[in-house]
Amino acid sequence: MIAVYYAPTPNGVKIPIALEELGVPYRLVPVNLGREEQKRPDFLALNPNGRIPVIVDPDGPGGEPVSVFESGAILLYLADKFGGLMPSDPRERIRALEYLFFQVGGVGPMFGQAGWFMRQPERITVGIDRYQAESRRLTAVLETRLQEARWLAGESFSVADIAHFGWLRVADYAGVQLDHYPAVQDWLQRIASRPAVQRALHPVPSN
Amino acid sequence: MIAVYYAPTPNGVKIPIALEELGVPYRLVPVNLGREEQKRPDFLALNPNGRIPVIVDPDGPGGEPVSVFESGAILLYLADKFGGLMPSDPRERIRALEYLFFQVGGVGPMFGQAGWFMRQPERITVGIDRYQAESRRLTAVLETRLQEARWLAGESFSVADIAHFGWLRVADYAGVQLDHYPAVQDWLQRIASRPAVQRALHPVPSN
Repeated sequence: MIAVYYAPTPNGVKIPIALEELGVPYRLVPVNLGREEQKRPDFLALNPNGRIPVIVDPDGPGGEPVSVFESGAILLYLADKFGGLMPSDPRERIRALEYLFFQVGGVGPMFGQAGWFMRQPERITVGIDRYQAESRRLTAVLETRLQEARWLAGESFSVADIAHFGWLRVADYAGVQLDHYPAVQDWLQRIASRPAVQRALHPVPSN
Repeated sequence: MIAVYYAPTPNGVKIPIALEELGVPYRLVPVNLGREEQKRPDFLALNPNGRIPVIVDPDGPGGEPVSVFESGAILLYLADKFGGLMPSDPRERIRALEYLFFQVGGVGPMFGQAGWFMRQPERITVGIDRYQAESRRLTAVLETRLQEARWLAGESFSVADIAHFGWLRVADYAGVQLDHYPAVQDWLQRIASRPAVQRALHPVPSN
């Protein structure tokens, strides 16, 4: 069974959501970030960057185990292996890749920096303003997209939606008020109500 | 012929390098960032995020033109379409994806923030320290990888190397001194001396 090294962070939740959507069994291996378990040698052997999520697939290439780090890489690995979460239409596949990278390179790091500066003991206005403004600009790009398409790739729910969901549902962490972005709000609601997403967000303890 | 909307930035150079490596003809469409041409309506129609690079492939799905934005998405689109720059070994393919996303979500944004804070009129130590430290930590992850493997994916030169090259060759912009990272320095030299990379970095004017 696929092991998901996991903490309930915006990047962490992407993986159980994808696995639930694909109908693939998995087990969560909790990683205690407060105790910096992700910086221990056994974890660094799986991801030298010392970050969750990581998966270990016991049935990797050649039937041997393989580990995968970086949430974007894990999403594409799972989509490819299990044949889902990427549109079959070739143009929509391109859109899915575009918005997947837009999340990884834009929304993720910028929301993260906004939240960090907002929580510093010393008030550093330049940092707060810079990253809140960028987070809002990026959210406006999503709003434009979601006013013209049901999902980020187009007609199909995809890895691009899953990638964004983790950050957008905690947008206020980055100082982004979603009532200014009605299409994003509606999209968020549609994702949150998917049964697979519900199962991923409220895992049943395994013992 | 593929049109590359281009400026000679760390993300911009990825695309002509990939196309030269793949042996695919292309033409550069210079985008003047100083005049904010990337925020004009005709450009936003290609990339609503208002960023270079973007490609327009006149021979997209169904033989119709298609545009692609986000450098990571463009690299995967080109690798898939033209059959190169992704390893044939399935384990190396996973590594290529991991390090591609590591660049897009880590090295790119963090080097960018370090450089930005280093160039502000007001000296904001918290910002400079935070992003220089993170840029060095990320470079150390690459150093570890390149001490065990010739290229980031393993034996094969791939999109992962191309993605990193643009930022690592200007690492001092982010306050990273590469003499502390000998394997990165050696790898950078090997990439810079590839004929395709030379052609991409020194384009012959087309008129």
